[in-house]
Amino acid sequence: MLIQMLVYPDMTLLDLVGPAQVWSLWPEAEIQFVWKDTSPLMTDCGLAVTPTHSFAEAAGSPGILFAPGGIQGTTRAMGDPEIIEFMSAQGAQAEWVTSVCTGALILGVSQLLEGYKATTHWMALDALAGFGAEAVKERWVIDRNRATGGGVTAGIDFGLALMAKVAGEDIARAAQLGLEYSPSPPFDSGSPDKASPETVELVKSFFASGSA
Amino acid sequence: MLIQMLVYPDMTLLDLVGPAQVWSLWPEAEIQFVWKDTSPLMTDCGLAVTPTHSFAEAAGSPGILFAPGGIQGTTRAMGDPEIIEFMSAQGAQAEWVTSVCTGALILGVSQLLEGYKATTHWMALDALAGFGAEAVKERWVIDRNRATGGGVTAGIDFGLALMAKVAGEDIARAAQLGLEYSPSPPFDSGSPDKASPETVELVKSFFASGSA
Repeated sequence: MLIQMLVYPDMTLLDLVGPAQVWSLWPEAEIQFVWKDTSPLMTDCGLAVTPTHSFAEAAGSPGILFAPGGIQGTTRAMGDPEIIEFMSAQGAQAEWVTSVCTGALILGVSQLLEGYKATTHWMALDALAGFGAEAVKERWVIDRNRATGGGVTAGIDFGLALMAKVAGEDIARAAQLGLEYSPSPPFDSGSPDKASPETVELVKSFFASGSA
Repeated sequence: MLIQMLVYPDMTLLDLVGPAQVWSLWPEAEIQFVWKDTSPLMTDCGLAVTPTHSFAEAAGSPGILFAPGGIQGTTRAMGDPEIIEFMSAQGAQAEWVTSVCTGALILGVSQLLEGYKATTHWMALDALAGFGAEAVKERWVIDRNRATGGGVTAGIDFGLALMAKVAGEDIARAAQLGLEYSPSPPFDSGSPDKASPETVELVKSFFASGSA
């Protein structure tokens, strides 16, 4: 199972590392982290990562193609013809075309979500609908061979759900236990319908200011 | 708030990225990723990361000192005098001494948990008790200025809880919403008391074989 995970400057690192850590417990999975070249690139939490394969080296049909999200980084990626060309070409031949968070917008601009039900970060659902997707607010969505996760931390749930679909529930349950994924958030403000209006405004101001 | 997060070869990347992504939404936080040098190093999910500061450059009193876990990587780190010396020295002057997963064993071997209540990955609780800590199975534990999280994914809960303690609940709730942390695991096998005996055995065989 060849997995190609796009990486790019200023992406949200947890979008990628959630499913990557889940899939690292999948014995048949071979993960490639792909970008234009293989120089280290900075992510939005201040930690640089090194792609394992350039776009040129990553040719071939992936079992899973994956795009992570971000804030300014995603906006820039969506305007980059080289990224769109790579994602369109790989997406056309991938068994599964997938994303977490605003990674769905990269799939969208690569015309990979037209007519598919999909999800993204709660603040980006309207933008997703603009690409011809049926945008729904779910933790993750699987529609035919498209699998999309909600915002950031949804990547763990998404990663487990897709792994169960492709490799079976036994290995996915083992990954959940290995990563001790028995979540217990200290608060219940992880969704705009649960958080206070003040918390929602604070998050919107973060993202608008680009400080996040 | 200076945060020093230890990175090391073959660490479990999600142990680190969970709290790092949470704390990246903390405007006052300055995160340093520290290691012996600043060359890229490989993590256990196949993605290399680049430390931002060497041990020598990271001198100074951290507000938060943090250690992530791993499998073989942690065992090697626990036998490395240079790491223990750095952690002991920084731990003695840190406001908060913290870990996720088997990172607690690195704190333990650095004699930073003696007489403290602490937690770690469910498979490592006995080992933790060997370092004079009162090992308890909780999602996270805060005892005086020691804060420790359970296995891997517990780093998100831990990160939010510690941020609330240090910076207040408002900003922690905003980080939870920003990262859309409203978990919905597809299964309920994230803890050994919930998983089937077969799942528990499968995980133990993974970790024993070193394939994880």
